[in-house]
This record gives sequence, structure tokens and C-alpha cells, in this order.
Amino acid sequence: MKTEILYGINPVFEALKADRRKVFEIYIAKDKTSGRIAKVVKFAQSKKIPVKEVKTTQLKSIVGNSRHQGISAKVNTYAMADLSDIIGSDLANDNNRFLLLLDNVLDPQNLGAIIRTALGVGIDGIIIPKDRSAMPTPAVSKASAGAIEHVRMIRITNMVDTIKVLKQQGVWVVGLDKGADKTVYSSDLTGSVAIIIGGEEKGIRPLVKKNCDFLVSIPQMGQVNSLNASVAAAIVMYEAFRQREKQRKEPDVRTTLKSR
Amino acid sequence: MKTEILYGINPVFEALKADRRKVFEIYIAKDKTSGRIAKVVKFAQSKKIPVKEVKTTQLKSIVGNSRHQGISAKVNTYAMADLSDIIGSDLANDNNRFLLLLDNVLDPQNLGAIIRTALGVGIDGIIIPKDRSAMPTPAVSKASAGAIEHVRMIRITNMVDTIKVLKQQGVWVVGLDKGADKTVYSSDLTGSVAIIIGGEEKGIRPLVKKNCDFLVSIPQMGQVNSLNASVAAAIVMYEAFRQREKQRKEPDVRTTLKSR
Repeated sequence: MKTEILYGINPVFEALKADRRKVFEIYIAKDKTSGRIAKVVKFAQSKKIPVKEVKTTQLKSIVGNSRHQGISAKVNTYAMADLSDIIGSDLANDNNRFLLLLDNVLDPQNLGAIIRTALGVGIDGIIIPKDRSAMPTPAVSKASAGAIEHVRMIRITNMVDTIKVLKQQGVWVVGLDKGADKTVYSSDLTGSVAIIIGGEEKGIRPLVKKNCDFLVSIPQMGQVNSLNASVAAAIVMYEAFRQREKQRKEPDVRTTLKSR
Repeated sequence: MKTEILYGINPVFEALKADRRKVFEIYIAKDKTSGRIAKVVKFAQSKKIPVKEVKTTQLKSIVGNSRHQGISAKVNTYAMADLSDIIGSDLANDNNRFLLLLDNVLDPQNLGAIIRTALGVGIDGIIIPKDRSAMPTPAVSKASAGAIEHVRMIRITNMVDTIKVLKQQGVWVVGLDKGADKTVYSSDLTGSVAIIIGGEEKGIRPLVKKNCDFLVSIPQMGQVNSLNASVAAAIVMYEAFRQREKQRKEPDVRTTLKSR
């Protein structure tokens, strides 16, 4: 089993709380103690995980950068799920799946911020293509404030094939696209949906776009076209969340009907 | 008049397009030309602004960092508006004002991202307290992708005094607060509103919170509490935008009534 070094208070704390990957050892900086670090250390000790005090310079060399906030942990690498884990699971019988597909989200900061929001809206799985995405590294864990420990990340090989499988499973595939006539606000994002979001530089690839059931845009006033990628992702995810919560509370008021 | 050095393609291009501050001279890196830079240069030349080719190393020393994307410009510093500019203006007779107040948004990246979204939803003015906010520096302009050139930024001295003035003008003051019982989705954000958003570290100060008409939260599932500050700001601003657009199109369907 491969290991890696998580760093920062939230990533280490959330890894411990989620209890999904093995934490071998925790390193804290001697001269950087704080109440928050003490809390993480206490929790680690209650789980019999060794905690080692090191010099700040040593911690920097363990982590490889200075953004460690005085704490790091040696852990197993992040465990990715397969698409079959979703399709073979109870989710397959669920008509309320809420999935996220990321195409060309290459920046670890953006990926981390998107994961953080995805956890907030209760996304069932975040699907990333193995050659068109940042990978779930410790830097992404840091950018996600540890949220990555609680979500399910799914690595796939071919996005178009995945879209086809999802459609067969009754999932509606919705692409976020600047040029779309329909906005997120005039689109039905309830039921089983997979939202596809592109990266800041490249957006969704044309063939992926072509395979979506429909495309939606975020309305924008003003002269500067395009929102930050993680902001755009948050707006779509939260609008879907709003509609889904409303639907859950008032199941009869469904106004739009989808047909493929 | 003080000058500063803007850098990056969007900040320079948007400063030229907005035409609000004087652009004295543009510097481009000899060996970093691109179609996008050529477009900016052409536009600058059409406005008779001198364009100087320099070495990349020189450009770096002009800018003070390497994130210049091959272009920078010597410009007047950003002109802030006063609260009286809004209150004395046509806006005072408008019952549909849409304002943003930032309390403790100290990180230039967050401020830039928030400004970018604010332009997208058509915010009338972004109000920042002079000792509790990042200032509109070239770094903020870069983080806003040049959006700052098109919005109105207002610097104030005392947030509580400002809230009182806004209330007198018939503006509803809404604070974003994690602990609020009411969510953004169950709150009326139409009409004249000022939304107050806190920073990632400190949030809205207690006294500021106390002076709000009401507080709203963003619903969140999952174990990790708190969204990225610029993401949270975007969700509130876009929910207000959605409600306001709906209200504009269906003015009779106003369901909630506010009373102070």
C-alpha cells in the first residue's frame, strides 16, 4: 500500500474523523502548538496513533512545503472508487442520484474548492477522468479543507462511455456551458442527475458536450464574461440542491417534465 | 495622482475597456507575445497609449512578480467612491438597490473572486471598511480577472454607521451567518438589499451582525462545516439574483412580506 503525507489542520483532522484511510503517524511542529492542533493530537492519541514532535524545519522537509500549519500525517494514499461501486450499489435503485462529473479541472485549488462545495450539497459521487483532471493529492485535500475525506471520488477512463452508462441507469446528464440558451434557473435539476463541469481554461470537451442530455448556463450581467471555475460549479450545485430540497418538501409541485 | 502597475492580460484589457483610469504606458514582454496580447496592444494603440517592448526579466522587475502573463500597464490608482456617491445619486430614488458589504475579507484572492461574481449579478456597489478589508490593489484586480474595473467600490470608515444610513434609505440589511436559522432560500432577497459577507477567518463582527435586519445561512450537508468565503458569497449573491429576476418577470408573485 502506498503512503503519502497529508498536511494542514483540516486535512489531518478530517482524515482521522472519516477513518477511511490508515493514519500511520502524525508529525507536529514543536514550536507551533495551538488549541486546534492540541485537539487533533488528543483525538489521534485516543486512536493510538503515534504523534511525533519535530522541528519546524524538519516538518517543512517532511511535507515539502511551508503550508503545513504545524501538522502533517503519514497516511495511505486516497482510495478511489470505481463506477461499478455506484452502479452495483443501492444507488442503482435510487431515482434521486446526484453526481458530479469534472472535465478538464486541472488546477488542484479548483478541484479542492469544488469538492468542498460538493460535500456541502451532498453529492453522491465525484467522477473524474484519469487523464483530464487533477488527482486527489494532499494539495487537493488541503484546498478542500479536508472535505475530500468524506466524499466518494470515482476515477474513470472514458467520459463519453461513462455518460452512456449513466444514461442507461436513468441518470440525466447536464453540462454547464456558457453558450447554453437555458439557464440553470429555468432547468429541472431534480431526480437523478449528473452535472458536468469543465475547467477554467478548457471547459467541457465538444464530444462530451454533445453527449449531454441538455446544457445549462449561468446568467451573467456585466462586461467580463466567465466566473471562476469553482464559483460556477458552486452556483450550479447549489441551484440543483435548492430545487431538490424544494421537491423533497413539496413533491407535487414538479412543474417541468423531462423526456429524452 | 498616484500610479500603480496593473499586470495580467484581463486586468490591463479591462482597464482599457472600462476607460475609468488613465493608462500611461503599457509594457509587454518581447518573447511572450500571443494573440490575446496582440489584441490588447492593438486596442491600446487605437487609444494612442504608448506600448513598450521589454525583456521578460525587466517586466518581472517592473511588476514585482512573475504572474504578469507578458503584459503590464502603468495606471492611476483605483478610484474609490464614497457612500454619498450612492446616496446622492439616482440610486437613492430606486427601490431595487443591490449592495454588497464586506466585513473582514482580508485575502486579496477572495476579494478578487467576490468582485468577479458581484459584476456577474449586477451589484450596484461593493462597500468595504477601510481597516477591515483587502484594498483594491493590482493583485485584487488580477484575482478579479479585471472585473474590478467595471464595478463601483465604496470605502467607508464605520460599518455600523453605514448600516444605519442604508436602513434610513430603505435598504434591507442582510448578514450571511452560519448560525442563522433562516436559509437564503427561505428569505426574501428582492427589493433594496445590502448583503453583508464576512471573511474566511473572522466572519462578520458581532456588532455588525447585531445591526442587520436579519441573518441568513447557507444550508449544508456533510461533516465539514463552512464553505470557502468566495463560494459562500457567490451562492448568496446568485440566490438573490435568481429571486430578483423572478420578481422582475412575475412582479405579482411576491410571497413574503418584510416588516422591520
